[in-house]
Amino acid sequence: MTVSILGVATTQFGELWDTSPRALVKGVVDEALIDSRLQLKNIDALYVGNMLSGILGGQENLGAFFASALGLVCPAFKVEGACASGGLAFYNGALGVRSGEFTNVLVLGVEKMTDHKPEEVALGLMGAGSDEERLAGATFPGLYALMAQAHMREFKTTEEEMSAVAVKNHYHASLNGKAHFRNPITLKQALTSPMIASPLKLFDCSPVSDGAAAVVISSDASRVKKPVVIKGAGVASDSLGLAQRNTLTSLQAAVDAAQKAYKQAQVAPCDIDVAEVHDCFTIAEIMAMEDLGFLAKGEAGQAIFAGKTTLGKSQKLVVNTSGGLKACGHPVGATGVKQIAEVVTQLRGKSEKKQVAGAKIGLTHNVGGTGAVAVVHIFARE
Amino acid sequence: MTVSILGVATTQFGELWDTSPRALVKGVVDEALIDSRLQLKNIDALYVGNMLSGILGGQENLGAFFASALGLVCPAFKVEGACASGGLAFYNGALGVRSGEFTNVLVLGVEKMTDHKPEEVALGLMGAGSDEERLAGATFPGLYALMAQAHMREFKTTEEEMSAVAVKNHYHASLNGKAHFRNPITLKQALTSPMIASPLKLFDCSPVSDGAAAVVISSDASRVKKPVVIKGAGVASDSLGLAQRNTLTSLQAAVDAAQKAYKQAQVAPCDIDVAEVHDCFTIAEIMAMEDLGFLAKGEAGQAIFAGKTTLGKSQKLVVNTSGGLKACGHPVGATGVKQIAEVVTQLRGKSEKKQVAGAKIGLTHNVGGTGAVAVVHIFARE
Repeated sequence: MTVSILGVATTQFGELWDTSPRALVKGVVDEALIDSRLQLKNIDALYVGNMLSGILGGQENLGAFFASALGLVCPAFKVEGACASGGLAFYNGALGVRSGEFTNVLVLGVEKMTDHKPEEVALGLMGAGSDEERLAGATFPGLYALMAQAHMREFKTTEEEMSAVAVKNHYHASLNGKAHFRNPITLKQALTSPMIASPLKLFDCSPVSDGAAAVVISSDASRVKKPVVIKGAGVASDSLGLAQRNTLTSLQAAVDAAQKAYKQAQVAPCDIDVAEVHDCFTIAEIMAMEDLGFLAKGEAGQAIFAGKTTLGKSQKLVVNTSGGLKACGHPVGATGVKQIAEVVTQLRGKSEKKQVAGAKIGLTHNVGGTGAVAVVHIFARE
Repeated sequence: MTVSILGVATTQFGELWDTSPRALVKGVVDEALIDSRLQLKNIDALYVGNMLSGILGGQENLGAFFASALGLVCPAFKVEGACASGGLAFYNGALGVRSGEFTNVLVLGVEKMTDHKPEEVALGLMGAGSDEERLAGATFPGLYALMAQAHMREFKTTEEEMSAVAVKNHYHASLNGKAHFRNPITLKQALTSPMIASPLKLFDCSPVSDGAAAVVISSDASRVKKPVVIKGAGVASDSLGLAQRNTLTSLQAAVDAAQKAYKQAQVAPCDIDVAEVHDCFTIAEIMAMEDLGFLAKGEAGQAIFAGKTTLGKSQKLVVNTSGGLKACGHPVGATGVKQIAEVVTQLRGKSEKKQVAGAKIGLTHNVGGTGAVAVVHIFARE
């Protein structure tokens, strides 16, 4: 059974102090429904991706919470898998459609983070880490810094190459009115920004953001001329902690998830025109490029530095046209759904200033924790 | 596609202070796998039902957490819907099988509650309530007490009838070696127990428990002679808060979920031989009996008091042979999965002292919050 994407929408990402989660969600769902030409009453199930509402806000049961807030009377679920919550909610919504149980499913990703103290958010995010990492006082910048150090040692990856990821993604975000950071930056600005966890500097890190994204999927695309469809999907898991891994320079869960998705879609990495990858830190985008098979191990840093994945410079694949987590922002549960909304909009040819010309096949790559879970989707326009 | 239940297992429920969540899960999964005659390597996906690990323990990403702890390398998800988390995880695992994506799915329900202070647990559980209920200082005994008051006023339901639910469920639990409370109680004991939230007394309330349960489901039952299968399933949602409801004496989500499940299974309430219903408070079992169509509105209290759903006295339907949430215990995320394990064991005729003779069709009813979400499953032995 083919699952089509009928509608997509993303809120403004950023520090949205004057907007409640309910208001964020209401607006983005209205927009996605209009895009899908469906009404609330046509929705058969709601899947919500969120990580931190329980830890930070004491509110659980977000499936029913948002169903009720939206006036939806239908099965409602929250799916959680740390920063991959949005992608995993989408994955399960699509399984619900493929099962035949639901025709139209609304997938919602949402996170409200900036209302809480930074130290509370950092601690909450460590809910995705392992016991020993939490007890050791590790935070995610520190854990990704370990991976960056290993990647630099093993493949001569440089700080300039990591900074180039930030420069590219800020440039893309400057073309995205909904991005958290819409200011282009220079390599020098990135390189000289304050050190957070060596070698990761401020501009190597994605921000703490608020935001929501919604996608409507369906087994019935009879009213749409050329819908974007899911061609393949894969999910894989790994240890929560870095200490249990065989390598620090690759995320095995991402490799495994990608292999499943490519196989199901019957496409190869070289077929992908546009991708949103999980650049929670700049080193993560470099690793993603290699894990997804876009570049050979150790070659992604140089390729990105050379502009090979930058809009307007790339001969083929453009990566993170939304600005990525780095510059579009990273409202955790929303991220995976926003990635899908971005790629679908690209494949529809509706991305305006940030449109990748002739984009036909797109990929999203959403990671939980330091790679404990990864979910990859491949989309195409039928 | 038919989804069969190949294996089930439940840990001891109770105050398990010397057992870690990982150890609980390891044991119960080993047992469920042996029962299913499968090995870990045969499992294609893991669905974990849990509510409080984030709020109480700061640990999220439980899909990958337990996959890794078990040595499973496969897609792993956490599904959360308050006290219905276990049932909702099972529901989504079954959709995954029906979609054709997975052949064998392991569903795990787990909660470790007694390591935390009671006031922290009470606050954590209010994560299933509405904003205004939390801000007003309401707790779940208080909210269910409001429903009990309304039911007493509208249908002349008595405190004796509610106590009779506790007496029945303690009796059933006395036959269940894995129950949290295995002591039979008298009506007088229940009626004279300390008041918690009028009219609900201590013995009207389910306890705070630790425990886990695991179920293996599959589209391939070729190696099983007469497997128990899912005949029907339904999920429905409602407002989180009581204030937004039309009635306090019925849970609309339970009514809706049951109707879907009966329709899908093509059976009627009178066909059910054995049921596990969500008796977080005794009034909840009374309401469940009415919401599920087993008894007319206002008649459940008397019927239960008269022993019509008690093992050995009932002419037909026996309810909560495990002892229910009330006496078997209520480790939140585990409850919905334990209910399924109990009903499957009954339909296999393997419930020993608590066996319902000739049980052919069974039902489970798992509720989140005060009825914001409900999930009903119907099972039969092919």
